[in-house]
Amino acid sequence: MAEEEKGSHRLDHAPFLVPPGKKIALAGYDPAFRGGLEGKSEGREALLEDVSALAEAQSLLWASAEHAVLIIFQALDAAGKDGSIKHVMSGVNPQGVDVTSFKAPNEEERMHHFLWRPMRKLPARGRIAIFNRSYYEEVLVVRVHPEFLEKQHVPRREEDLSLEDLWKSRYADINRFEESLVENDTLVLKFFLNVSKAEQRERFLERLNNPEKHWKFSAADLRERGHWERYQEAYEDMLNATSTAEAPWYVIPADRKWFARAAIADIITRRIQELKLRPPEPTAEQLAELDGAREALRQEK
Amino acid sequence: MAEEEKGSHRLDHAPFLVPPGKKIALAGYDPAFRGGLEGKSEGREALLEDVSALAEAQSLLWASAEHAVLIIFQALDAAGKDGSIKHVMSGVNPQGVDVTSFKAPNEEERMHHFLWRPMRKLPARGRIAIFNRSYYEEVLVVRVHPEFLEKQHVPRREEDLSLEDLWKSRYADINRFEESLVENDTLVLKFFLNVSKAEQRERFLERLNNPEKHWKFSAADLRERGHWERYQEAYEDMLNATSTAEAPWYVIPADRKWFARAAIADIITRRIQELKLRPPEPTAEQLAELDGAREALRQEK
Repeated sequence: MAEEEKGSHRLDHAPFLVPPGKKIALAGYDPAFRGGLEGKSEGREALLEDVSALAEAQSLLWASAEHAVLIIFQALDAAGKDGSIKHVMSGVNPQGVDVTSFKAPNEEERMHHFLWRPMRKLPARGRIAIFNRSYYEEVLVVRVHPEFLEKQHVPRREEDLSLEDLWKSRYADINRFEESLVENDTLVLKFFLNVSKAEQRERFLERLNNPEKHWKFSAADLRERGHWERYQEAYEDMLNATSTAEAPWYVIPADRKWFARAAIADIITRRIQELKLRPPEPTAEQLAELDGAREALRQEK
Repeated sequence: MAEEEKGSHRLDHAPFLVPPGKKIALAGYDPAFRGGLEGKSEGREALLEDVSALAEAQSLLWASAEHAVLIIFQALDAAGKDGSIKHVMSGVNPQGVDVTSFKAPNEEERMHHFLWRPMRKLPARGRIAIFNRSYYEEVLVVRVHPEFLEKQHVPRREEDLSLEDLWKSRYADINRFEESLVENDTLVLKFFLNVSKAEQRERFLERLNNPEKHWKFSAADLRERGHWERYQEAYEDMLNATSTAEAPWYVIPADRKWFARAAIADIITRRIQELKLRPPEPTAEQLAELDGAREALRQEK
């Protein structure tokens, strides 16, 4: 009964998954999909259940210290990355979580391989790292603005490549990188928050009409919106090229914030639970030590 | 009315403060003090109020991006540092908070000045950094175990110093360091969780008797307990030497977990609120940009 109740809001993740090896069209994913949840209040209940299950799962991740979790968020502006991170992670011990927001790379970072920057922010065993944007920007914003490549000092070999070959080479780099992470006990979860063009407009207007949200808006956001179609193309290619069996992409319907948050929380929680983590078992030697300590404390007076 | 209710659980912080320039005795601080709160349920209510106020205060800290907040936790084992961090920060957006646990320094870190390690983990403007243990260990565990100094390659000048002079020199280093942080818009909050010897014993036994908590116990914890008096002395000297007007220490009664958490949450929340932060005001130029963006979006069809 309790089991059943607990599972009552559970979502089917299949509609979100980008199947590895198949070619998807982004147009086939409805940003307003709500996967059987009736509305906001059911979405919030589902989120709350998962937030508390996630807190438990993270304790176990920390205690067992065998696996790491890397969670990547990619999306266009105002799709809800920040709000999702805040709400989904609200129950988790901040001591075990590191969030990195990847902004435009600085001069030192541009002098390095594009995977140097994220490498240093990867999670250690027992920890969760969240990337708010990530190395995927190198096949997204840089693809829409190939002039950014000039500052990247890419080696001559790459200058000889066509741009198309360059993105392919980066997809391959990323797939090798993530494969190696997964082989080294890192669970890699990748979320694309799929917002519609109409909904982005509404959210921009909301920010513009509310003085308390003015600081969230920058004129650059509107310029990037002008490249909407090219971004959709870049995202679609990225999803097709880098949704692998080891590290698949989830396309999250993002026009309803409550739904996006519930879906993300559910996927993270279940994928960590599937690791079947257990607290570490003390060795015989450690058990003897524990017995000795217990005895010593009992005899204190 | 709402104002009054909101303030109903507010604590007087004076009993916790180590007054700068005065000499306190740690024995004068009761680990079981509960500052007028009746019990667990009132403590939890107070905590919840502050957790939600703290979430709001942190949003504003982030938006205004003028001040940084550094929160230091020091305590003996099982005093409740981890649990306090988890519960007090549970409502805060993990994107704006970094928690660093300072374990024994590695070889590279020991080759540096003892303030090199924390320097790299300081909070940027808009962010909160939490130090779970800190550079204060250099006048605590190192003072109780002066043999650790051998691995620190301290310069000849310091080898000529008496040990007592060395701690004094470190107190002075720390005070200068923190003074400079405060002058550069960092709010520095320092909490010593004051647990009694009897309560530590209970908590150790609880960990030893509960297989799910075995991993939290190490034999080293018991060895350090054997140095209880010397630690109390080291803490007392540290509190007297480094509770400054810029960065005072708070001694938190820690025998009741619910009280410690409520007190810490209340102090953090109120001290950030006292910064009187406001969201950034757009300049005339930015306002014109916002108007232009609003117009452009409205005309879209």
